[in-house]
Amino acid sequence: MKLWEKGIPTDKQIEQFTVGNDRELDLVLAKYDALGSIAHAKMLGEIGLLTQAETVSLVVALEAIIKDIENGNFVIEDSFEDVHSKIEYLLTLKLGDAGKKIHTARSRNDQVLVDVNLYLKDVIIELKVQVKQLFDLLMQSAEKYQNILLPGYTHLQIAMPSSFGMWFSAYAETLIDDITMLNAALKIVDQNPLGSAAGYGSSFPINRTFTTQELGFETLKYNSVAAQMSRGKSEKTVAFAMSSVAATLSKLAMDVCLYMSQNFDFISLPAHLTTGSSIMPHKKNPDVFELIRGKCNKIQALPYEITLITNNLPSGYHRDLQLLKEGLFPAIQNLKACLDIALFSIKDIKVKEHILEDKKYDYLFTVDSLNEMVVAGIPFRDAYKSVAEQLENGTYTSPKETRHTHEGSINNLCLNEIKEKMKASF
Amino acid sequence: MKLWEKGIPTDKQIEQFTVGNDRELDLVLAKYDALGSIAHAKMLGEIGLLTQAETVSLVVALEAIIKDIENGNFVIEDSFEDVHSKIEYLLTLKLGDAGKKIHTARSRNDQVLVDVNLYLKDVIIELKVQVKQLFDLLMQSAEKYQNILLPGYTHLQIAMPSSFGMWFSAYAETLIDDITMLNAALKIVDQNPLGSAAGYGSSFPINRTFTTQELGFETLKYNSVAAQMSRGKSEKTVAFAMSSVAATLSKLAMDVCLYMSQNFDFISLPAHLTTGSSIMPHKKNPDVFELIRGKCNKIQALPYEITLITNNLPSGYHRDLQLLKEGLFPAIQNLKACLDIALFSIKDIKVKEHILEDKKYDYLFTVDSLNEMVVAGIPFRDAYKSVAEQLENGTYTSPKETRHTHEGSINNLCLNEIKEKMKASF
Amino acid sequence: MKLWEKGIPTDKQIEQFTVGNDRELDLVLAKYDALGSIAHAKMLGEIGLLTQAETVSLVVALEAIIKDIENGNFVIEDSFEDVHSKIEYLLTLKLGDAGKKIHTARSRNDQVLVDVNLYLKDVIIELKVQVKQLFDLLMQSAEKYQNILLPGYTHLQIAMPSSFGMWFSAYAETLIDDITMLNAALKIVDQNPLGSAAGYGSSFPINRTFTTQELGFETLKYNSVAAQMSRGKSEKTVAFAMSSVAATLSKLAMDVCLYMSQNFDFISLPAHLTTGSSIMPHKKNPDVFELIRGKCNKIQALPYEITLITNNLPSGYHRDLQLLKEGLFPAIQNLKACLDIALFSIKDIKVKEHILEDKKYDYLFTVDSLNEMVVAGIPFRDAYKSVAEQLENGTYTSPKETRHTHEGSINNLCLNEIKEKMKASF
Amino acid sequence: MKLWEKGIPTDKQIEQFTVGNDRELDLVLAKYDALGSIAHAKMLGEIGLLTQAETVSLVVALEAIIKDIENGNFVIEDSFEDVHSKIEYLLTLKLGDAGKKIHTARSRNDQVLVDVNLYLKDVIIELKVQVKQLFDLLMQSAEKYQNILLPGYTHLQIAMPSSFGMWFSAYAETLIDDITMLNAALKIVDQNPLGSAAGYGSSFPINRTFTTQELGFETLKYNSVAAQMSRGKSEKTVAFAMSSVAATLSKLAMDVCLYMSQNFDFISLPAHLTTGSSIMPHKKNPDVFELIRGKCNKIQALPYEITLITNNLPSGYHRDLQLLKEGLFPAIQNLKACLDIALFSIKDIKVKEHILEDKKYDYLFTVDSLNEMVVAGIPFRDAYKSVAEQLENGTYTSPKETRHTHEGSINNLCLNEIKEKMKASF
Repeated sequence: MKLWEKGIPTDKQIEQFTVGNDRELDLVLAKYDALGSIAHAKMLGEIGLLTQAETVSLVVALEAIIKDIENGNFVIEDSFEDVHSKIEYLLTLKLGDAGKKIHTARSRNDQVLVDVNLYLKDVIIELKVQVKQLFDLLMQSAEKYQNILLPGYTHLQIAMPSSFGMWFSAYAETLIDDITMLNAALKIVDQNPLGSAAGYGSSFPINRTFTTQELGFETLKYNSVAAQMSRGKSEKTVAFAMSSVAATLSKLAMDVCLYMSQNFDFISLPAHLTTGSSIMPHKKNPDVFELIRGKCNKIQALPYEITLITNNLPSGYHRDLQLLKEGLFPAIQNLKACLDIALFSIKDIKVKEHILEDKKYDYLFTVDSLNEMVVAGIPFRDAYKSVAEQLENGTYTSPKETRHTHEGSINNLCLNEIKEKMKASF
Repeated sequence: MKLWEKGIPTDKQIEQFTVGNDRELDLVLAKYDALGSIAHAKMLGEIGLLTQAETVSLVVALEAIIKDIENGNFVIEDSFEDVHSKIEYLLTLKLGDAGKKIHTARSRNDQVLVDVNLYLKDVIIELKVQVKQLFDLLMQSAEKYQNILLPGYTHLQIAMPSSFGMWFSAYAETLIDDITMLNAALKIVDQNPLGSAAGYGSSFPINRTFTTQELGFETLKYNSVAAQMSRGKSEKTVAFAMSSVAATLSKLAMDVCLYMSQNFDFISLPAHLTTGSSIMPHKKNPDVFELIRGKCNKIQALPYEITLITNNLPSGYHRDLQLLKEGLFPAIQNLKACLDIALFSIKDIKVKEHILEDKKYDYLFTVDSLNEMVVAGIPFRDAYKSVAEQLENGTYTSPKETRHTHEGSINNLCLNEIKEKMKASF
Repeated sequence: MKLWEKGIPTDKQIEQFTVGNDRELDLVLAKYDALGSIAHAKMLGEIGLLTQAETVSLVVALEAIIKDIENGNFVIEDSFEDVHSKIEYLLTLKLGDAGKKIHTARSRNDQVLVDVNLYLKDVIIELKVQVKQLFDLLMQSAEKYQNILLPGYTHLQIAMPSSFGMWFSAYAETLIDDITMLNAALKIVDQNPLGSAAGYGSSFPINRTFTTQELGFETLKYNSVAAQMSRGKSEKTVAFAMSSVAATLSKLAMDVCLYMSQNFDFISLPAHLTTGSSIMPHKKNPDVFELIRGKCNKIQALPYEITLITNNLPSGYHRDLQLLKEGLFPAIQNLKACLDIALFSIKDIKVKEHILEDKKYDYLFTVDSLNEMVVAGIPFRDAYKSVAEQLENGTYTSPKETRHTHEGSINNLCLNEIKEKMKASF
Repeated sequence: MKLWEKGIPTDKQIEQFTVGNDRELDLVLAKYDALGSIAHAKMLGEIGLLTQAETVSLVVALEAIIKDIENGNFVIEDSFEDVHSKIEYLLTLKLGDAGKKIHTARSRNDQVLVDVNLYLKDVIIELKVQVKQLFDLLMQSAEKYQNILLPGYTHLQIAMPSSFGMWFSAYAETLIDDITMLNAALKIVDQNPLGSAAGYGSSFPINRTFTTQELGFETLKYNSVAAQMSRGKSEKTVAFAMSSVAATLSKLAMDVCLYMSQNFDFISLPAHLTTGSSIMPHKKNPDVFELIRGKCNKIQALPYEITLITNNLPSGYHRDLQLLKEGLFPAIQNLKACLDIALFSIKDIKVKEHILEDKKYDYLFTVDSLNEMVVAGIPFRDAYKSVAEQLENGTYTSPKETRHTHEGSINNLCLNEIKEKMKASF
């Protein structure tokens, strides 16, 4: 049953091309579609387009459908184009004319818009929780390993002393910025598009404030054309925020892979987090972190894909917009999986304790030495020359420990301040 | 004078390759570099690494440099690598040893970081003001033309009645989401990285809370490694927000170009906003809006450029990061120019008043007709079939006016509510 | 059965994360994996690492597997990590020790490389055939409608006369450039990587020239490190070529959608190629072409995704590379589907015959008029002014037909020359 | 002087916005514009639209302009919109009416198209030469260092023996694929668009075959609409090929930066190729290679920028296309500079000779050991288990040399075959 079918047979091949894998993707929207329909039905009752009996019967039927969805008993057969036509079919089957009336004063366009916004709201809230869990783990690791030194690099050259405390909490603090991006995305999707119909509103006397409250949206996307234009833009905004999280994870994973290399040998992973080689018996490969890196890099291509599909299209709905789900929905699952597996894996990272004993790291402390001279009154540029000469002559000796005091330094990580910042940003 | 020069001559070709067009790009940072240096000097005075006299002389000299910058009397000659070495040179020339001491307890890395963050803060605030001005203009146009109807399209097919009021205020309301993105970017760059030195902090007893307050940052980027990692991430975040604004402008420009086409003929532009053709005397081309569209599409490539430069680099500074300025700074100028020219041009758009009189737009009102039948009690699907038959038989007649009532519909634009939302989001 | 399993249980969650949907994606590679194994087995026989009996038994068993694959009787169960381990398992089950020996002197790395190259060779050849079919159809349409005029636009403004002959054959000729790109991609994947093992070659006395001939590769990717580095690069090259085809198709689809709009009304589509609206009974939407446009725009994001996954990774295999299949394989299916459906749909486009009778198109001929004056001896700039004045005064009259003579003009389409160029480029 | 100016003053701000930095970018096109005009003038003479005297005077004047361009005596003042109007002005100034006639039968559209194609042809030929020079250098280095072993990595884990010979020639062989891409781009831009006028041809009896031969193009882009559509597509094709070269260079640079790290310490660079730190006296940073990497990553964003500007635009010229130069021209300069500096720098790389003596590399030879057992008749999987056990027990001893024989292995680099392949592909 196609909603728009008017007796003309549609070629099978065309159907397959136009429907694509919508049915599968739509499963994730089913619950939100039913929730949107409940709010819509109540509103139609409130303005008198449905009788009270019709409203009640629709709400009861939709709640039963939600239960089926939650229990995994909801399928979209090949005879249905999408989740919307399947649910409308179920309602009509059960309620007859009352079922047909659910589509009064709305279009598939605003139906999809409200489904996607409700779904994305839930997604962002879940992502925030996952990011916060990872933040907590990284902060715990920072605290636990705060006294274990690590070489710090610039240009991939040994530069200055760092520590596992610095390293773990650096990624934690960076995640706070990702939360800020997620919050912006949440604010943008937290606007009710229902009632914008096909993008130009409706001549029915609908009450959009009612559905806004019913669905728990913070505000309306008032202008119906603006509501329609948010298709693509909402998805891109969420993709931007997801890209921010993904970039942080990817960089962390790159560090892990590098630090696992025998040439760095700063950390190790337990056997269940590594894989072997089909021909090299000694290999312990950090596949999990390579895949976090790769998957998170792939996620960062998503905003570009969305932009390519949507840019230079004039205002108004275009069928192209249907393709946005194909990229976005799996990317959401991938990011959640990456956050899960990161949480699972980072806790098992074993840090090496005596890294700086290797003589190649002696140079790490030259800046500290230089600074001591400066504090003792020698101008910076002169101190710099002096240390440079000691290095040249081989007379430089390393202190091998740090006594940094400032905010955010090795010996003053400000973990509490960072936790407070996260709390204030969450 | 290269800061790192230690007597070894660097090949000219290499120098040109590594310095690139940094001097030119750095001009925009000059004021912020001096401001950062003032805060740093005061802090060094506060912790006793500079005498009070040294501090005062540095602050006075730096304020004189800022005056020169503001008066256009500041240049970075080819003998200097960048703005930082030029300003340090000026200070040393004027103050001798005190000048040399300004670089105590900092690195070029955190100097650039603080310069860029201060600059981006100003940029975002300016962009917000420009976006608000455009919002105001669009809202005024919406109010002025709210009663002039326009065909609404879906699939580029004539669909339902719209209006210039809907059209103008749709873009206005969309800009509110762009403000939300700019606010997120602002929050992310409003964190003080000064004191993170080369990315691992400093052994000097510096006071980063002092410089944070002095420079007016909302908070510190505490962790020094996190501060370093914000390079690239800050730029990308700002690029995401800029892309959001650009996408809105680009879509508006696409609509304008389409509506200017003789095949739509919904609007016209005065002669000074169009250009002609070297061989077609009748042409009135909307070059201004085509260039807004094109430039704004180009801006949307910026986040991907930044991602390509930064992804898969492990933590710690890499020289690659220096290249970020090359893409970002001109994009900022381009977006500001696009907003300026949009403000300048949109106010001169002339809307056509009797568009819907053309018979091809009769079908626009079929949904309204259908809805009337539904309000009169006919089930939706039956009403749909009836109108479809009237269309088939040629018996359909169009009402040619709308009486929509709901929030965000043609006859109830909710302009005040949209203004309130902007006020709350700004 | 994991090839690298050494008794340590791998956590279920990790397995799911690392294996992903490899099994499903690998199905497409199954045939090529078996073909690669046949060549490898024969070569091992040739150099004496397999007995003749072992070689024969392996070849026979692999040919049986290929038959199963072709008949749809090949599945990769959840107990297998990928296609390679499944096939090795089948061989070992059937042949015991001989089956185990198939993996001698190769790694999963070069196995995947050779599978992917063989697959991409076939894909490109199929794409070329599809592109050629579309070319032929467009050329036929150009010939058929060569005398039907169409307005030509610049800046979306009515500019100069064009024709359906020009329009159809323009896209045809553009496809020749896409063939050039496909040829380049074909040349690049037509190099044998088998024998590069894990990316550093093998100490076995293998004969790579033998497998190159056996598999029909044009040449070897000699250097084993280069062979390994081609992973990602081959995929990107193919993605570049696919993007070229996709860009042509997407632009054509955009034209079709615009020309279908009632405001242009240049073409129409039969009912089976349009879809309706759930609330607008008069709509005939060109969904098929919108989806061609959208899918082809999405395909153009693929090279970027590949670049993001691979860039800044040092040489040598990384697990991230496994993710390339996820984006590439469905994109290949999508492009093939778009080409199929374009072929199916473009043949049914109905062109309107009397478009230029509408008075808004009168201006189209001003340049021709102007040129006549120039041929009559009036300097171009003066003729330009004169026509501009006629337009201003309303005295301009349009010839309504063209008599262009040059190569590639309305009345001299050079269809044969374009066909010859395609023949030479194919 | 604007070509399209008809007495209406254009607002200054608008002019700045629309002209942008075209004048500067156009300088690179000046020579090609004059060459295109010479061919065009000769053709106009040939078909009788210019007298012989006019033709000769135009050709002489244009040749003088080319001389000025080559001597650096050509400037485009602010009073000119672009290179085309400047050259037309010079001709009119010198030749009066004959100068005016040069624009007969062409448009700025096909003028830009032919200029850009001529320019890109030269660029690609130059790039090919540079790539070939780099190939030669890498092959020489491979030969010179073919006996120096290097650890080979997979997953950044020590894997199997490699060598500097393998490493250098791997990048060389990869460059052959980049040449294939450059050849494809060359073929695509080697088509004459002149005569397509504003994208729909001309009513003048021009001879496009004449200008094709005159300008040395291999063929015509026949269809005028196709010629116009090549704008953007040509640029993107060249950008694809440039991206291929850039990706190879970027990966090589990543390896160099990693190998320079004290944790790898495989190579060193002379002082003039490294830079120091403003606060770390011991630093020797590989800035040159970091900048090659960064610049080459930035170049890889170019195709996406071009795609974003052009996609979803219907056929026909749009002013947006003018913006393509802004991204492409500097990217060309950057890629040439990267190739130059790579050539300059790679020859000075010093390789370390005794890398494999470090005990952490002992495991490298496990596969060779395993293979020896296999050659001795032990089944692969059993040999694998045996070596795994030796590693576990600490009884494994490493041979520390390789005796590989196959094509493309450490001891059989096939340098001559690779050189032959380059010769055949160039």
